[in-house]
Formats: sequence, C-alpha cells, structure tokens
Amino acid sequence: MATFMDVHTGMKGITAEQLAAAHRADLEVEAQEGVHFKHAWADPESGTVYCLSEAPSADAVQRIHKLTGHPAAEVHPVPLSV
Amino acid sequence: MATFMDVHTGMKGITAEQLAAAHRADLEVEAQEGVHFKHAWADPESGTVYCLSEAPSADAVQRIHKLTGHPAAEVHPVPLSV
Repeated sequence: MATFMDVHTGMKGITAEQLAAAHRADLEVEAQEGVHFKHAWADPESGTVYCLSEAPSADAVQRIHKLTGHPAAEVHPVPLSV
Repeated sequence: MATFMDVHTGMKGITAEQLAAAHRADLEVEAQEGVHFKHAWADPESGTVYCLSEAPSADAVQRIHKLTGHPAAEVHPVPLSV
C-alpha cells in the first residue's frame, strides 16, 4: 500500500453536499480495488478537488474515481510526507 | 482563518530530509504571517509537493513560502473538506 494525492479539475461551484456525496460514493466501492480515500479538500472557486488515499496503485485510485463518475486529472504517488 | 492547499512543482528528486527541512523552515517563520503549515506530501518522481495550511489568506501562505525560498506554483483556498 502507498499514499496518493489525486487532483480533480473542472468542479467549479461544488458544494459541501456534493463533495460529501462524491466521497461517500468512493467509499462505497473503494474496497473492490483495495483503496481507501482518507480526505478530500475542495476549492469551489477554481473547481479543484484534492483527494488523499491509501491504495495499491495510482491505477486502482483512478479506477474507483472512474467507477463513481469523477475521474481524476492527475494521480500522484506521495511516498514522502511530514 | 481558512484552509489552503498549495502546490509546488519542479522538485524532482526531493528527499525525505529535504522535505522535512523545507517544512521546518516554514514552521520557523510562519507565525510572522499567522500561518500554520499542517502537512506536506511529496512526489519525488514528478517533483510535486502539496502543503496543507491554516492561514488568513493565500497571499500570507505564499509570503512564507517565498521567505523560505520555495514559492508555490498555486495556492488554493479549500473551504470544503471531508
């Protein structure tokens, strides 16, 4: 397992309810790919959303996001953290 | 106070020690601007670093990062989180 930060763009105007619903949708199916989404942060003004996850691979993260209808623009492994 | 996610690029090959040193440098001067850097995550392969902070403004976050020699490419307010 490794840690990933993924980035979604084009989500201008996203609301707290929409972010929570998207996160819930991911949590409901994440186990299929051995992924766990830990946190997400959204900037409704620029339409950017960042998701932090633990997963076996970047592809696994992306497969869950695609399955729930919101593919990420980028998925980065972040092996270093402080 | 608000929450911000900032993104650094061009940090290919960053090591755990370099990330820790950069974070420590920020922590040493952050109070000047009322900022607190909570976490940072780095992808040495693409050279991307994400920093999560609490701050009075995006400009305050950027001023601290500039003061310590690593200006952010983007600073996003992230008022929504899960």
